Amino acid sequence: MSISAENTTHESVAAGITAPEPTPEEAAQLEQLYRDFDKENLIPLWTEIGDLMPMVPSPKAVPHVWRWSDLYPLAARAGDLVPVGRGGERRAIALANPGLGGTAYATPTLWAAIQYLGGRETAPEHRHSQNAFRFVVEGEGVWTVVNGDPVRMSRGDFLLTPGWNFHGHHNDTDEPMAWIDGLDIPFVHYADAGFFEFGTERVTDEATPDISRSERLWAHPGLRPLSGLDDTTSSPIAAYRWKYTDAALREQLLLEDEGHPATVSQGHAAIRYTNPTTGGDVMPTIRAEFHRLRAGAATETVREVGSSVWQVFEGSGSVVLNGETRTLAKGDLFVVPSWAAWSLQADAGSRTEFDLFRFSDAPIFERLNFNRTYIEGRTK
Amino acid sequence: MSISAENTTHESVAAGITAPEPTPEEAAQLEQLYRDFDKENLIPLWTEIGDLMPMVPSPKAVPHVWRWSDLYPLAARAGDLVPVGRGGERRAIALANPGLGGTAYATPTLWAAIQYLGGRETAPEHRHSQNAFRFVVEGEGVWTVVNGDPVRMSRGDFLLTPGWNFHGHHNDTDEPMAWIDGLDIPFVHYADAGFFEFGTERVTDEATPDISRSERLWAHPGLRPLSGLDDTTSSPIAAYRWKYTDAALREQLLLEDEGHPATVSQGHAAIRYTNPTTGGDVMPTIRAEFHRLRAGAATETVREVGSSVWQVFEGSGSVVLNGETRTLAKGDLFVVPSWAAWSLQADAGSRTEFDLFRFSDAPIFERLNFNRTYIEGRTK
Amino acid sequence: MSISAENTTHESVAAGITAPEPTPEEAAQLEQLYRDFDKENLIPLWTEIGDLMPMVPSPKAVPHVWRWSDLYPLAARAGDLVPVGRGGERRAIALANPGLGGTAYATPTLWAAIQYLGGRETAPEHRHSQNAFRFVVEGEGVWTVVNGDPVRMSRGDFLLTPGWNFHGHHNDTDEPMAWIDGLDIPFVHYADAGFFEFGTERVTDEATPDISRSERLWAHPGLRPLSGLDDTTSSPIAAYRWKYTDAALREQLLLEDEGHPATVSQGHAAIRYTNPTTGGDVMPTIRAEFHRLRAGAATETVREVGSSVWQVFEGSGSVVLNGETRTLAKGDLFVVPSWAAWSLQADAGSRTEFDLFRFSDAPIFERLNFNRTYIEGRTK
Amino acid sequence: MSISAENTTHESVAAGITAPEPTPEEAAQLEQLYRDFDKENLIPLWTEIGDLMPMVPSPKAVPHVWRWSDLYPLAARAGDLVPVGRGGERRAIALANPGLGGTAYATPTLWAAIQYLGGRETAPEHRHSQNAFRFVVEGEGVWTVVNGDPVRMSRGDFLLTPGWNFHGHHNDTDEPMAWIDGLDIPFVHYADAGFFEFGTERVTDEATPDISRSERLWAHPGLRPLSGLDDTTSSPIAAYRWKYTDAALREQLLLEDEGHPATVSQGHAAIRYTNPTTGGDVMPTIRAEFHRLRAGAATETVREVGSSVWQVFEGSGSVVLNGETRTLAKGDLFVVPSWAAWSLQADAGSRTEFDLFRFSDAPIFERLNFNRTYIEGRTK
Repeated sequence: MSISAENTTHESVAAGITAPEPTPEEAAQLEQLYRDFDKENLIPLWTEIGDLMPMVPSPKAVPHVWRWSDLYPLAARAGDLVPVGRGGERRAIALANPGLGGTAYATPTLWAAIQYLGGRETAPEHRHSQNAFRFVVEGEGVWTVVNGDPVRMSRGDFLLTPGWNFHGHHNDTDEPMAWIDGLDIPFVHYADAGFFEFGTERVTDEATPDISRSERLWAHPGLRPLSGLDDTTSSPIAAYRWKYTDAALREQLLLEDEGHPATVSQGHAAIRYTNPTTGGDVMPTIRAEFHRLRAGAATETVREVGSSVWQVFEGSGSVVLNGETRTLAKGDLFVVPSWAAWSLQADAGSRTEFDLFRFSDAPIFERLNFNRTYIEGRTK
Repeated sequence: MSISAENTTHESVAAGITAPEPTPEEAAQLEQLYRDFDKENLIPLWTEIGDLMPMVPSPKAVPHVWRWSDLYPLAARAGDLVPVGRGGERRAIALANPGLGGTAYATPTLWAAIQYLGGRETAPEHRHSQNAFRFVVEGEGVWTVVNGDPVRMSRGDFLLTPGWNFHGHHNDTDEPMAWIDGLDIPFVHYADAGFFEFGTERVTDEATPDISRSERLWAHPGLRPLSGLDDTTSSPIAAYRWKYTDAALREQLLLEDEGHPATVSQGHAAIRYTNPTTGGDVMPTIRAEFHRLRAGAATETVREVGSSVWQVFEGSGSVVLNGETRTLAKGDLFVVPSWAAWSLQADAGSRTEFDLFRFSDAPIFERLNFNRTYIEGRTK
Repeated sequence: MSISAENTTHESVAAGITAPEPTPEEAAQLEQLYRDFDKENLIPLWTEIGDLMPMVPSPKAVPHVWRWSDLYPLAARAGDLVPVGRGGERRAIALANPGLGGTAYATPTLWAAIQYLGGRETAPEHRHSQNAFRFVVEGEGVWTVVNGDPVRMSRGDFLLTPGWNFHGHHNDTDEPMAWIDGLDIPFVHYADAGFFEFGTERVTDEATPDISRSERLWAHPGLRPLSGLDDTTSSPIAAYRWKYTDAALREQLLLEDEGHPATVSQGHAAIRYTNPTTGGDVMPTIRAEFHRLRAGAATETVREVGSSVWQVFEGSGSVVLNGETRTLAKGDLFVVPSWAAWSLQADAGSRTEFDLFRFSDAPIFERLNFNRTYIEGRTK
Repeated sequence: MSISAENTTHESVAAGITAPEPTPEEAAQLEQLYRDFDKENLIPLWTEIGDLMPMVPSPKAVPHVWRWSDLYPLAARAGDLVPVGRGGERRAIALANPGLGGTAYATPTLWAAIQYLGGRETAPEHRHSQNAFRFVVEGEGVWTVVNGDPVRMSRGDFLLTPGWNFHGHHNDTDEPMAWIDGLDIPFVHYADAGFFEFGTERVTDEATPDISRSERLWAHPGLRPLSGLDDTTSSPIAAYRWKYTDAALREQLLLEDEGHPATVSQGHAAIRYTNPTTGGDVMPTIRAEFHRLRAGAATETVREVGSSVWQVFEGSGSVVLNGETRTLAKGDLFVVPSWAAWSLQADAGSRTEFDLFRFSDAPIFERLNFNRTYIEGRTK
């Protein structure tokens, strides 16, 4: 594609045009016309086109980093002060993008929050059109119950609650636990597409099995139960366990060591979480991936239509966002707005790989044919 | 689906819960916590959930009717006062939904405008990611040139300019002409997905053929050129001519008269414009349909996720929007926000049918699996 | 693809291998082994692989031409001697490929026959899994009734009877009429997939409308009735009329004259008949196309996996089949077996274009991913 | 569907019609007509329709059981007498359906063979359009090398060689090994769709890893490498390991014990092997499944369009084929022709479950819309 990565403006183009100066009478008529437009709930395009239709995406959302070392203590204080229960529903604290004017949105489409559940607490059941997942950067002891199926939550696990499934959480231990929630709340709110329904006050099944029934039925590689041959909108796997994610990434790097194609680029392993009934994304609006960089490895610089949120799972490194470098530590979260240039760099001296979880709204753009990618030095 | 059509509130639920009154010390701590949230760009869910996740869609957009008898004269005044050309690009005046706070949006996703081109005027060429169409309620004399293919515009025609096709318009007569434009500008702006590029000042082909090359290649029923076997994102047909739309609707009513299934419901004929390479919608974000009601006929009352804009093409009747009846005449436009209840009624004494053009954002919701429909008296 | 177009043999490869001559004792043991295989219904691969798995497709079906001047008089004689009615069902006479050992098959997958119906005769109703169509090279006066919908048959029309639709034919005139039938009878027989059911003795509707209800509902370019939004396995259009086919081809040649891309290659216009609900082939096993060559034009030489049957509709020319040229006149039919090399040539001095109808089993191969095409001088 | 499961005949219908006896002159004319048809390579439908288009599928293939106790010794004798190598390619001995007239076909579409490789032997590399798999009922020690990737073969493993992948096998031990091969050879031969190419004499990689590179990249539940985001026609997983199949089946029965929906029917667990890039069948023409019945459990009686081959993997039981019961032991293979009635019964007193591997041509019928299923007592 011949589109440039950088914005230019309608204004600069318009400025080059020497329009005749209106006479005072014309100016008065024009003023009256605009007043009449306003009265009839009309707005002309020609005064707004530069803002409405920029040359390249010009998001209000800005790149931003939230530190886990800030987030967790605040969540713990909320744990002391704010009860969890019906009405408020969840003790979740959302990342509010500084560019989005005080809304609780990480990006225009995505919600990201830290959720905190004290020892023995229960978050009551409900369901909603919004698609949700949880990712656990540390801790254990909570079970999320999805449509009656209790799902253990542990470090590294990626857990699904697709739209319109009843779900609640309960902490089976005396210790608190925190994790991140990702949802398409902003998109659904924007699009006026959300339904919500309350469920039971306590979770419908307080059992604490190691693996959920959904995993027992579905989490076998390349195998599908004959009792489940109808494709489903979202993945039927409630939990993608860390041991599988870790193994998949480790094998990619080993295959690379052995000289076989397996990684995205040199030193950069990555997997996408998928719906086994289709091979596609886990939910209609949310893509989830896990990335691992060897110490010292770096990605290319990329711009994409659509936004994403990343969380560091392990290791240390940095991200360059629109040219500005930010160092990252375990648990840190950052946001990449649409068409922002990003690249990742794993610390060279690190003894561990640099592991990051990512989720994005890419399925929205792919399904509506708005997806574009620009790779610096490669896209023409 | 067991979802109710009407909203209830989180507030009413929360109100039923008697939480212990915080002590002054607790209240102070809580206040400090919220201040600290704010400092770290964090927002709690529990204070916002009622607005963020209503029980049913609660759009800010409101039902509204714009009168053609108001619109056209204002457009004509703009024709006298505002030149059309590079920079402003188009003399288009947008329907601004009174609920959407002064944005030039008919609904959160859809743009609808009246565009006016004086005799011998030219709107310069450009292209953009936004998908666009035009619908002509009256007049003729303009050709829109889409990727170099001149397309005549006449009453009843539905004309496509899918994303990223260069296009401009020129008036080949001495008389002005106006039509409506529909685009996904609000969606693309919201989603930060838009690219824009200027083209030539004049249209690239000033020929004025009766039918475009795209029609000559593609507008043959059930036939596909062997030179065009790759499916396309959007329809390759640049113009859907009135004579075909009219004939299709007329045949449906005749078939109904003869006792055969053909109409949507008694006295209600309708067609959808489609992409002949897939049988699906004409563009990834926009659905377009044409509806015809016999004199005296009425539709059921329907609520749908997603919004639409209608224009009366011929005849007279009324629309009931969330219980409020509004009479309609030729050229009038009205907006149906998400989940608003709507029904149409053709005047009983009319000598003509009640003809309406409709466009909506339904493909967005279907592709992302948020679509729901509620028909009064039928949906359980 | 690097596959060569021509066959070589396992035998030639095996011949190059000097295997040790078996001793008499070994030979006796081997003979006994083969006898024991036979007793247990077993057959070794190594003695058969050359025939079973040739280097390139080696069809038993051969290229062959049937002359309309031979076919029609024979069909007329059958009209005098053989009654049409329940049990025999149809007065259809099938093209029997000389390579296929006396079966009534044009190719391994396709059936092609001339069907003849005398004045005032009726072919009784029945239905079957097999997909069927008719193509009319001359004549008129018969209506085929498909699921109760009477469909006029006239020169140039392509008419569908997809699997499991009841259908019968009746001649409303005193004159006989003949046309060609195409079905997937050989495939369905081979695959043991066929079901058959008798219907009424006379057609269920003896009306003789100009256009069928299916056309009135569906044959509008790019339009789809809202009462028919579920995609259908086969096309809902019962008749593809000559006037549309002719117009589509004529426009392609005119566009070529004007310098625009529209034809398959210089002087070669072609359309595919499609299912408007999907844009794909009209039926799951049968593709149908119409080709028009300007006087003097020729196609490239092509080999394809899968077989096809062609009928000359108008004009004169020739086909080269595996290197052998055969001249063709109106109504002549010829068969192209899988991987046979074919090219068409329109007579240079002709005052008309060279018009040909084609049907093939291409959807079978595309849906099962066996499709391959080799174009002489282009495929590497 | 109202189709009956049992055949009736055109003949019985035709017999009920009293056609007038032809005069001697008419009989002579008719005889001459048939001779003239024959001369012109024409065959009338009315004399053949009963065979060509039966009321229900009437396969020539018959139900048949092959005993492992017969097969294995014969294969071993071939191992002593017949070298494996270029030209013959494979020491494979095919199940020849007694109804199919001496062809090496298990069913009209499917090939099933026992392949035997002596200690230290190599089957040379080649590739072909035909889709192939292997299933191992006992033994180990052979690696199949698929496009350069060595894949260990062990009891219970299901191994893929999709069309046009180079592959060879080598035995890394001193002991012989046998397994079954399944291919679509009969279909590809029938359809004239096959290409074949010789590869290297020895396998291209003689390494003997525990798991193949394809598994390391792809066999992680619900995860997909970012380096492999393009969907593939056939599954990229070269080996589906027994431990996963066994675990999936075991969990289904445990879930059933716990009262949760998981099995196909009471006591009947089953999985389908899938392509993780699509969730669909592993190859375009072949479906593969594994079934487990608890001791004493039985399936319903089913008729399906399309044929299948089963092999007993463990346990004992019986199959009822068109009403005839046959007892089955480990390794036994049986064939179910199209529309044959089948049901399985696990021995009641058995201490193990009754485990069976199955493959079929179901994808052919589903992709071409010929699939139908009749369940005794349930289908109407």
